[in-house]
Amino acid sequence: MRAKPDLPLDAVGVGNAIVDVIANVSDDFLVEQGVVKGAMTLIDAERATSLYAAMPPGMEVSGGSAANTMAGIASLGGRASYIGKVRDDQLGEVFRHDTKAGGVAFDVPAATLGEPTARSLIQVTPDGERSMNTFLGISAHLSPTDIDESLVESAAITYCEGYLWDRPEAKDAIRHAMKVASDAGRIVSLTLSDSFCVERHRAEWLDLIADHVDLVFANEAEACSMFETDDFDSAVDGLADLVEVAAVTRSAKGSVVMSGGERIDIGVTPADHVVDATGAGDQYAAGFIYGLSIGADMLRCGELGSIAAGEVISHVGARPHVELAQLIRVPHS
Amino acid sequence: MRAKPDLPLDAVGVGNAIVDVIANVSDDFLVEQGVVKGAMTLIDAERATSLYAAMPPGMEVSGGSAANTMAGIASLGGRASYIGKVRDDQLGEVFRHDTKAGGVAFDVPAATLGEPTARSLIQVTPDGERSMNTFLGISAHLSPTDIDESLVESAAITYCEGYLWDRPEAKDAIRHAMKVASDAGRIVSLTLSDSFCVERHRAEWLDLIADHVDLVFANEAEACSMFETDDFDSAVDGLADLVEVAAVTRSAKGSVVMSGGERIDIGVTPADHVVDATGAGDQYAAGFIYGLSIGADMLRCGELGSIAAGEVISHVGARPHVELAQLIRVPHS
Repeated sequence: MRAKPDLPLDAVGVGNAIVDVIANVSDDFLVEQGVVKGAMTLIDAERATSLYAAMPPGMEVSGGSAANTMAGIASLGGRASYIGKVRDDQLGEVFRHDTKAGGVAFDVPAATLGEPTARSLIQVTPDGERSMNTFLGISAHLSPTDIDESLVESAAITYCEGYLWDRPEAKDAIRHAMKVASDAGRIVSLTLSDSFCVERHRAEWLDLIADHVDLVFANEAEACSMFETDDFDSAVDGLADLVEVAAVTRSAKGSVVMSGGERIDIGVTPADHVVDATGAGDQYAAGFIYGLSIGADMLRCGELGSIAAGEVISHVGARPHVELAQLIRVPHS
Repeated sequence: MRAKPDLPLDAVGVGNAIVDVIANVSDDFLVEQGVVKGAMTLIDAERATSLYAAMPPGMEVSGGSAANTMAGIASLGGRASYIGKVRDDQLGEVFRHDTKAGGVAFDVPAATLGEPTARSLIQVTPDGERSMNTFLGISAHLSPTDIDESLVESAAITYCEGYLWDRPEAKDAIRHAMKVASDAGRIVSLTLSDSFCVERHRAEWLDLIADHVDLVFANEAEACSMFETDDFDSAVDGLADLVEVAAVTRSAKGSVVMSGGERIDIGVTPADHVVDATGAGDQYAAGFIYGLSIGADMLRCGELGSIAAGEVISHVGARPHVELAQLIRVPHS
């Protein structure tokens, strides 16, 4: 797989524009509140209010899976842009500021009517695992008309969030973005996002991936859910049959890249201490896509993913705290 | 000094209700943006917009000096309430949530009109020093009618922020709160907040402190500014002449408590690593006031202040990340 290097952008991400509200909780809190550990659960406004009221003091940090990935690419030195929808409210301003300040172009105008900017109430347990409860708000109203076609055509890779598939308008927006990218000869990429998300959309996604996706990202649970198997190897083989390249992460066990019939196993970049797993998959994708943009081979792409993921799990929040470009320099001996 | 133990509340704080927007920057950034290092500078809406645009990605954490102190008291196991003003906007919701979730009663209704909830753009440099740029918004419109007199009467200590003195309405609110507390025989406390704040109000504050304040908190720069001296010892003597108790912090050099003609020097509780000095003074006051509420002597009050301050400088944000009550238990041997 080769990304065109002579385009204005390395990647454009399409996703739910979300501000994360992150708090540390005990495992008991998850049980009391009926939160599904490790998953992304969609919640309505009422549940968002009651769950937030029960949560300890938190911090607000811009998130959103594809936006996190674009922030990672920019931090690595790549050229990234973002398509997603916020309201003209304070959280929308926070999201726009953080995204642009992180070096990602983001010019979709804020909606002046409708639901508020999306937020995800994220509980981090002492083991560093994150459980997400997302109120999609206006982000789910991303529609095909929000897809700037010339922007998509100007990017070597179009990266879409599976999360968007949960709402009809946003699903049409993904389909449109993928078609524009594909028609222009660009690489189309999809992240499966969440195993419950896979369950909800398995049949449609099998077709979507086979027909319209070149590069798929998944974690172990998502890949296994896609093929309703507990066997990791058969799940990655299944993905490899559908796409040109599949990159599957498996937490502490590293990742596997399937490309042109070849399987490449990649180790993790160990973090001193896993503080918050939020964004690990997003940053793996960032490193991988950045690798493609600089013409790296599949092994190096996966290593770059591991390095970016290793940084983000060492602190609270889903976007890099340091310039990732500094971390990937090959040391001179 | 003895705080009445049989009242419903140990303390009520009166202050600017602010959400902190915290980002790590270089010292060069401060120079480029004309930010006064280590100070709290008031900014208008226009400057807030331009400075925010220049800042790197940040995180939003509830702050406000007196609110931080009340959160610290609650974390230590004390009973605290807060009086301050937010708008009915998203940052106002964040502030209310975090304050209540931290165990502090906060029932002042949100304003439905007027300026937005206050925010402070805080730049943290690699040395852990914080430079604050505060857009006061609706918080400065706290007025005497917002002071719940029965709430103030129900608290052993009324703790006011010097920061409030920068706006006429809020200044009247402080004066009113102090009078209600004093008339009820309660302890009246003031923090000098910021050396530039002291400069702006020196003459008025000398009278205010002498006539209406029992317990004053200051740091070295604030105390020296109050008496226009570089000599720390004469500054603390000056404060001691005005009030029953003065507690003056001096960063790594610990703190000094002046009480009834006696001077008590207190060491610091060392932090492994100073990450962000935001809230150190606020938490020192929290520990000290909590000490008064449990009948501790002045030395122990200062030590509790040091412990609380030591925790907060070890992480980003101005409120405790752990239950401070756990940190102050005297170990059994």
